[in-house]
Amino acid sequence: MESRNIDLNADLGEGFGRWHLTEDEALLSVVTSANVACGFHAGDPLTMRRVCAWAAERGVRIGAQVSYRDLAGFGRRSMDVPAAELAAEVAYQIGALRVFAQAAGAQVAYVKPHGALYNRAVHDDGQAAAVVEGVLLAGGGLPVLGLPGSRLHAHASGAGLPVVAEAFADRAYTAAGTLVPRTQEGAVVSGGDAVVERAVRMATAGEVTALTGERVEVRARSLCLHGDTAGAVELARRVRGALESAGVRVEPFA
Amino acid sequence: MESRNIDLNADLGEGFGRWHLTEDEALLSVVTSANVACGFHAGDPLTMRRVCAWAAERGVRIGAQVSYRDLAGFGRRSMDVPAAELAAEVAYQIGALRVFAQAAGAQVAYVKPHGALYNRAVHDDGQAAAVVEGVLLAGGGLPVLGLPGSRLHAHASGAGLPVVAEAFADRAYTAAGTLVPRTQEGAVVSGGDAVVERAVRMATAGEVTALTGERVEVRARSLCLHGDTAGAVELARRVRGALESAGVRVEPFA
Amino acid sequence: MESRNIDLNADLGEGFGRWHLTEDEALLSVVTSANVACGFHAGDPLTMRRVCAWAAERGVRIGAQVSYRDLAGFGRRSMDVPAAELAAEVAYQIGALRVFAQAAGAQVAYVKPHGALYNRAVHDDGQAAAVVEGVLLAGGGLPVLGLPGSRLHAHASGAGLPVVAEAFADRAYTAAGTLVPRTQEGAVVSGGDAVVERAVRMATAGEVTALTGERVEVRARSLCLHGDTAGAVELARRVRGALESAGVRVEPFA
Amino acid sequence: MESRNIDLNADLGEGFGRWHLTEDEALLSVVTSANVACGFHAGDPLTMRRVCAWAAERGVRIGAQVSYRDLAGFGRRSMDVPAAELAAEVAYQIGALRVFAQAAGAQVAYVKPHGALYNRAVHDDGQAAAVVEGVLLAGGGLPVLGLPGSRLHAHASGAGLPVVAEAFADRAYTAAGTLVPRTQEGAVVSGGDAVVERAVRMATAGEVTALTGERVEVRARSLCLHGDTAGAVELARRVRGALESAGVRVEPFA
Repeated sequence: MESRNIDLNADLGEGFGRWHLTEDEALLSVVTSANVACGFHAGDPLTMRRVCAWAAERGVRIGAQVSYRDLAGFGRRSMDVPAAELAAEVAYQIGALRVFAQAAGAQVAYVKPHGALYNRAVHDDGQAAAVVEGVLLAGGGLPVLGLPGSRLHAHASGAGLPVVAEAFADRAYTAAGTLVPRTQEGAVVSGGDAVVERAVRMATAGEVTALTGERVEVRARSLCLHGDTAGAVELARRVRGALESAGVRVEPFA
Repeated sequence: MESRNIDLNADLGEGFGRWHLTEDEALLSVVTSANVACGFHAGDPLTMRRVCAWAAERGVRIGAQVSYRDLAGFGRRSMDVPAAELAAEVAYQIGALRVFAQAAGAQVAYVKPHGALYNRAVHDDGQAAAVVEGVLLAGGGLPVLGLPGSRLHAHASGAGLPVVAEAFADRAYTAAGTLVPRTQEGAVVSGGDAVVERAVRMATAGEVTALTGERVEVRARSLCLHGDTAGAVELARRVRGALESAGVRVEPFA
Repeated sequence: MESRNIDLNADLGEGFGRWHLTEDEALLSVVTSANVACGFHAGDPLTMRRVCAWAAERGVRIGAQVSYRDLAGFGRRSMDVPAAELAAEVAYQIGALRVFAQAAGAQVAYVKPHGALYNRAVHDDGQAAAVVEGVLLAGGGLPVLGLPGSRLHAHASGAGLPVVAEAFADRAYTAAGTLVPRTQEGAVVSGGDAVVERAVRMATAGEVTALTGERVEVRARSLCLHGDTAGAVELARRVRGALESAGVRVEPFA
Repeated sequence: MESRNIDLNADLGEGFGRWHLTEDEALLSVVTSANVACGFHAGDPLTMRRVCAWAAERGVRIGAQVSYRDLAGFGRRSMDVPAAELAAEVAYQIGALRVFAQAAGAQVAYVKPHGALYNRAVHDDGQAAAVVEGVLLAGGGLPVLGLPGSRLHAHASGAGLPVVAEAFADRAYTAAGTLVPRTQEGAVVSGGDAVVERAVRMATAGEVTALTGERVEVRARSLCLHGDTAGAVELARRVRGALESAGVRVEPFA
């Protein structure tokens, strides 16, 4: 069997002021790409600075986790933001994070939308195009991390930006290879063993079993690990360990 | 008499979403340096983008007008922000603005604190040092625009940053050369003629008459014009016209 | 002809801190019901206090203009707020305004959703029900001002709350008696004379001419006047004058 | 020995949206007064609703924990808010909470400033008077919970409002009976046993040993327990148990 490699990404820095959510330092010892909150759904400047410094020390790649402006809803509520505003908001967040990445001797290396913006950019052409316009505004031709087949990736590719496909080891897939909506029974895979097994199969065989039983192809250069649940760090360590035992190199996407 | 030159700076982009305050386009045809609000006391991303584009078109220099995080108080209320947070907040704002300046083919060329932060950094060592730390974090060795003799300028110079002294043609001065506090009678110079006359004298002779009658030396490389009052644009035009008539070159500071 | 009466309502207090939008004092001399912004799309506590005091002095009825939490978008962006959160947010806003109404010797006498929440509650059952739940939470059985035929009014009536139908003299109507969407050509009636004529016809005959030429019945106990455009106060005065000349009593809804 | 009684108060509902801080339900089974965050430093409407419902079920008294508008700083940064704005902000918060207290069949029964506002109102006459003005605006003659000897209590008493003195079992006192500033070594009492012992002595003997060894009188009708640290609930239970074992009735202040 050919050698495989995979990137592990997780959302980090998702506190705000007095409030904390993600175990940033611990997760930064496991993942290879850090989606850093930029202040719109979570993430204050001091936290952004610290997470960038920790990531740079560990050689973890820094990405801008851009979001709707919605602290009260943690960016999880779909919003009809006009395209010009949304593009400017995306660029604003990337620019703010770039200061801290560069101060740590690193760079903002990619962009990943958060929460409701992520979900909406899968199918909404206007918002997907606005996110891409924001990434272009920010300069540097940053790769866009997201779902393969999403409108976001279509617009990013059309604009000449690299796209990076990701998969979710803890989410159920349909027979068509899309995510089962969270509103549906069985959408989230329960049990650490199942998550670990799916991660390894995704990384080594490029496939997963759909909720309805079919074998589905899932080609991903990055696996998303969730960092905001109890036991998240431990599960992330197990996933990484299992991948390495299976001969997969865990490293940032090229 | 030797040839003189002077920079004219004004606060711009001080709306937020639906609300507008400053006549940005009109003022950008008069001033040579634009202190652009960065979202903490005013300034949304789309406005920042527009003001940067307009400034770049006209060759107006772009500066980051950094502030306390205080939309409700327009940054005019002194806040005891811990130094590490304040430094990160300053850097965040500079980074966010930089995206829009660069997208317009320009650069963030200087930093000027706004409102209560400006006033506090005159005498408060801790906050002055924190602002300077934020400017250093943002990289690029940006000049700091402020009051000559301020702690802000002392810390900036100490850190190797260029400092640019500014004066206010519409504010009364004490015999010691400091600004008469706004809480005191006569602090603001009323009457357009008086403002124009003082601006010309500051730029050509480097002096002004104090509120108590003494002649005071005022060495400034930039004059601050206020843009948020009725008739602000017209007064700014008169000041610029009078300066040029007096043989002063109105141009960005070196 | 029988005697007619009509209520005139307008959005007021829609500034925030340093920013102002509506000419509150002038409009309070024209309208009979004030939709006071409660801090979520606009409206700071001091402005709310002042507007309530001015309204109480003039005998103008005070209503809570409740909104999505969206200062940056002025409440004009539709948001997928979960029902339980939305209900609590509506109640919160009513409670906050009630303090200032009562301090002025008056009461919060009705509720009217603002902007995107208003539009969404016309057809979205879940959000309409959530707004009504919020009104019920706030107690007092407050009337709900809105579009006749809206889901908002259906849910309010179902919950035993009074409903008050309003019409818009400056908006075009379809042959079915609904508002022409703003995205469509001709949605906003231009010209003060046309607005005045339509207001009088709505109040005296209960009808209006649709954009497509048909005569349409419009039964409204309140007419909404817009206060955030140039000439708004003058147009409001003309509408009121014309109504009174036509024998219509301009007074708060019963 | 005469029978004693004491109130136990704690800050509750100090999350915001996705973020949680205090173990609200558990603490509501221990304390007799709940200082509920009102949205300015923490506390979203849905959390406020829930905490009020839980408090009402358990017969716990509900107080408005009013704060500066500062989510990013959790209300811990002193701010120079002008008196008229501060008074209106205090009233706004009380009104918003009142909706949820009343919906739960209870009332807002007192007011306690939070964080930096609490500390500042100890000695700052202008802000203390503004808080009291806000309480008066909100109506109902609400008692003000705070430090005995504070300017806040002086202004509240002067305005005819009841004042309730509180003490801190986990804070060191000076020989003069004031709190040792947090910036000073030894300001916070460490060790659960010491905190329990001090609570009992405060409640039964009205005294405590100062940091410098003197016996100091501390007359308090309420003891403040901190709910935002690890082990807070367990310590609160121990304090309550020890008080009851010592014959102290733990009940809301009269």
